[in-house]
Amino acid sequence: MTGNRQWIYARKPAAEVGPDNFDLKQTPVPEPKAGEVLVKTTLLSLDPASRAWMQGATYRSQLNPGDVMAGWGLGEVVASNAKGFEPGDLVSGEYGWQQYAAMPARALTRHDRKHKPEHILGALGITGLTAYFGMLDVGRPRPGETVLVSGAAGAVGSIAGQIAKISGCRVVGTTRGADKCKWIVDELGFDAAVDYAQGNLDRTIKAACPNGVDVYFDNTGGEVLEVALRRMNLFGRVACCGAISQYNTGTPSPGPFGVPGFLVTKRIRMEGFVVMDFYNRKAQAEAALARWLDDGVLKAPVDIVDGFENMPSALVGMFAGRNKGKLMVRV
Amino acid sequence: MTGNRQWIYARKPAAEVGPDNFDLKQTPVPEPKAGEVLVKTTLLSLDPASRAWMQGATYRSQLNPGDVMAGWGLGEVVASNAKGFEPGDLVSGEYGWQQYAAMPARALTRHDRKHKPEHILGALGITGLTAYFGMLDVGRPRPGETVLVSGAAGAVGSIAGQIAKISGCRVVGTTRGADKCKWIVDELGFDAAVDYAQGNLDRTIKAACPNGVDVYFDNTGGEVLEVALRRMNLFGRVACCGAISQYNTGTPSPGPFGVPGFLVTKRIRMEGFVVMDFYNRKAQAEAALARWLDDGVLKAPVDIVDGFENMPSALVGMFAGRNKGKLMVRV
Repeated sequence: MTGNRQWIYARKPAAEVGPDNFDLKQTPVPEPKAGEVLVKTTLLSLDPASRAWMQGATYRSQLNPGDVMAGWGLGEVVASNAKGFEPGDLVSGEYGWQQYAAMPARALTRHDRKHKPEHILGALGITGLTAYFGMLDVGRPRPGETVLVSGAAGAVGSIAGQIAKISGCRVVGTTRGADKCKWIVDELGFDAAVDYAQGNLDRTIKAACPNGVDVYFDNTGGEVLEVALRRMNLFGRVACCGAISQYNTGTPSPGPFGVPGFLVTKRIRMEGFVVMDFYNRKAQAEAALARWLDDGVLKAPVDIVDGFENMPSALVGMFAGRNKGKLMVRV
Repeated sequence: MTGNRQWIYARKPAAEVGPDNFDLKQTPVPEPKAGEVLVKTTLLSLDPASRAWMQGATYRSQLNPGDVMAGWGLGEVVASNAKGFEPGDLVSGEYGWQQYAAMPARALTRHDRKHKPEHILGALGITGLTAYFGMLDVGRPRPGETVLVSGAAGAVGSIAGQIAKISGCRVVGTTRGADKCKWIVDELGFDAAVDYAQGNLDRTIKAACPNGVDVYFDNTGGEVLEVALRRMNLFGRVACCGAISQYNTGTPSPGPFGVPGFLVTKRIRMEGFVVMDFYNRKAQAEAALARWLDDGVLKAPVDIVDGFENMPSALVGMFAGRNKGKLMVRV
């Protein structure tokens, strides 16, 4: 152990987050106290919500300049001062952006090595669970319905769309660029893709959803949400998972036109959720996701960047829409 | 019968609806065809949605200039060409603004004379059913929670707030003017009232709801909705009943700030509804409302204007916030 490198959230972004919002810092490797476990991180997850944490309180408290940048990861126990954990154990937790983390044992989840590490952190982890509960419990698609997913080439969107396919729906995704549009159709099995960078969303979403939209799984907010509300069918459902279009700015836009008007006339249910609220049924979801993955009906695309030093640039790339599937950094 | 007077929806309002949007017309009293019933209207209901019908398709098709102005009413059968209906029967239906209507028998509901006519058209009719299903099935208040109702001195709001009181909640209403604020507290039993005309809604709603808002029953949209979203507690529910602040204008505002952001972080469910969707349980709701009314735990305030010629001015007065409780015209 040559010390612990950390990315510090150093300065609040005025608008778009950039590398200058972070400082790389070298500190001693911490000692695990009683009841704690020392983890060496191996994979760190990059998430759109990271930017929201800088802006204010969300489902977690606001990040403050000087904090180790927050984030989830996978790692290996290197020293344990807690019953039930031993060196070599594979564990996940909210480590933050650092190479070593001393964590209370209760804040860790242990994993077997049956699945690939990137899937443990992705499709079988928070990402997959978010897609599972958001689509099935909040969106509640019925076979034959049309499901629209924004951010469809992203971590959660790519899984959410496939779960709607498994549920017997026609699934349309929005993403940016011809390459990712082709990819979600050819590789992930979406029925159609809409390139939001081409503009004319009203026309293109209408063309891709000739029978209207029954469930809209919203990862972006913004214009796609506004158009989706216009295209929703009677008794449509909007599962509000996130709003990546709104995070990376200092000036959030007003809400979408049609709220509350369309909600009333079309009896739309619009519901926000956070995956942790469903953790009483975590085992059920994990089992389903693992089975689909093992059976090959669910693909779990990952986009792995090598090198801890690349954490900030990976985050910036995500907001530029550069990743396909779950973005993570190999430490 | 000296002829049938009708109010024609003659010209689309550019912004606020006024008397000049209607023409009074004298036509022959219609003859009921086979299967039809001729009704003489006695009470006609005035509803905020009337203005929305002029703007576009809602839960009913758009009104077009030249149509008899739409609306619900109570009346007496004067001639019947349909089995099961006889002169003297008390019936309600969507008569439109006219003194006589020839209606298909299946479009009529017959009533006994156990309750006052104004209650049949109000608290025991669409108004009461809207409040009942919207509050209990969409809002789902639990005893001890805080319920905020906008348009609380209006037809639906006044009943919805009382149903939340019956459900064991602390109930706060928004309305316009000191007089109506005092009235919803003293007469209807609301725990607190907020006068939205006084401005500072952020501060006044916060003061009236020190424990936040668990259920917001939205009759108005606009600024109250925006403030309510800021004050909502985790897992709060917004029952979207209507948006009177948005109807009487040619230029609807953008959606409320915080959609979808607050919905996600606070796990809010925002759901629109139309009373007819719940009609499979109409009898259950009517029985409950009648029992509460008979027991005196539910007050059913009515604001009755005399004279068919006053239909347009009564509608204009409603948008100016002049009525207390259910507004109707005695024909």
